[in-house]
Amino acid sequence: MKGYFITFEGIEGAGKSTQSVMLHNHLLQNNKKVVLTREPGGTKTGKKIREILLSHTEEIFPPLAELFLYEADRSIHINNLIKPKLKEGFYVICDRFTDSTLAYQGYARGLDINKVKEMNSIATEGIKPDITFLIDIPVEEGLKRISKEREKDRIENEELHFHRKIREGFLKIAEEEKNRIVVLDGTEKPEVIFQKIVEILKNRNII
Amino acid sequence: MKGYFITFEGIEGAGKSTQSVMLHNHLLQNNKKVVLTREPGGTKTGKKIREILLSHTEEIFPPLAELFLYEADRSIHINNLIKPKLKEGFYVICDRFTDSTLAYQGYARGLDINKVKEMNSIATEGIKPDITFLIDIPVEEGLKRISKEREKDRIENEELHFHRKIREGFLKIAEEEKNRIVVLDGTEKPEVIFQKIVEILKNRNII
Ligand SMILES: Nc1ncnc2c1ncn2[C@@H]1O[C@H](COP(=O)(O)OP(=O)(O)O)[C@@H](O)[C@H]1O
Ligand SMILES: Nc1ncnc2c1ncn2[C@@H]1O[C@H](COP(=O)(O)OP(=O)(O)O)[C@@H](O)[C@H]1O
Ligand SMILES: [Mg+2]
Ligand SMILES: [Mg+2]
Repeated sequence: MKGYFITFEGIEGAGKSTQSVMLHNHLLQNNKKVVLTREPGGTKTGKKIREILLSHTEEIFPPLAELFLYEADRSIHINNLIKPKLKEGFYVICDRFTDSTLAYQGYARGLDINKVKEMNSIATEGIKPDITFLIDIPVEEGLKRISKEREKDRIENEELHFHRKIREGFLKIAEEEKNRIVVLDGTEKPEVIFQKIVEILKNRNII
Repeated sequence: MKGYFITFEGIEGAGKSTQSVMLHNHLLQNNKKVVLTREPGGTKTGKKIREILLSHTEEIFPPLAELFLYEADRSIHINNLIKPKLKEGFYVICDRFTDSTLAYQGYARGLDINKVKEMNSIATEGIKPDITFLIDIPVEEGLKRISKEREKDRIENEELHFHRKIREGFLKIAEEEKNRIVVLDGTEKPEVIFQKIVEILKNRNII
């Protein structure tokens, strides 16, 4: 693959979208070929899947069904956008990716960790991020930030306890994959966090 | 499980829906607790998934994404309808189930057969049909029957060659699971086929 694949991970309100947009703009200003995308919902079909995942329902929504939907979205995303753009030499910035599935469906919903890893690896067809920024903040801080913005969707609506398991899950994943995942303190100012991101990318010869 | 789980399989136009409805009516007339359902789309959320699966799109639709969507639909279906109804002692009649996934995504789309079987077994949480009627007809005959009815969806729209692989796939699956799967000649008259179904169900003490 000629391009670079950069993902942002973290709990709700951590600042993933903020930093993704800042990096996207930075690379654009430096005349780089770059595309900003997200999961779920990075494609047209993916947007319909995202809508199913986030909308409220009276029905039982088994964690396994969530897992299958995220992986369906991912498979479509990989084939229609991520893989072709990386082949064309683009920077592909993705707001959430496989680590979110492992943290949410594995660590928080309680599905078997190895099963989730296997599904992730099937859906991605071997494509891994070159680098992942895990923006870490306390759960209360993240939820406080998003509560100001808008009504919560089905997943944001879960209890504090659930979001704590996600944060802990992300930190375990980062511990296991120290080379790929860089943990950043999300309580710092956006500009401070972004400066660190740029430095790290430069140090690794990615930008 | 107190109830009985009966599935109908076969290519497009084989007569699955016709026979499912006949059996449903027959059991109702005999004052049985019975529910008729189908895959994909046996639940509210499942109907949204079905809509994604069948609608035409310009995007690449990877076989793997199809597989994940069918399994998501199935997981929701199992948990909201099939399992609870079987526990309550209902006859659950399902128009297409796991064998369709194996025939379409496995034998026809070319995904690894064991992988598809594994996904099926994960999604069903161990629930298997007590009996499956595979209605077998030549591909040309099936497609001729449905072409009269309405516009074809994304999957029906595939070439003859694709549907032949499905028919062959179904027959292989039936060969492997002779106890569960009964193959019926779908070119016979609906009433003749239905009479056989009733006889077989009586012989097996299901009705
Ligand atoms: N470092 C930060 N410090 C304070 N507030 C932030 C920071 N980063 C983002 N925010 C604000 O927090 C809210 C959530 O940020 P966002 O980037 O959408 O988070 P995420 O995408 O991780 O859910 C937004 O209102 C955003 O402006
Ligand atoms: N045994 C049969 N012989 C002739 N036509 C049939 C038979 N069974 C069904 N049909 C007709 O063929 C068409 C497809 O049947 P349907 O039950 O909807 O098939 P499926 O659900 O397997 O796609 C319908 O118009 C139906 O009336
Ligand atoms: Mg965001
Ligand atoms: Mg039908």
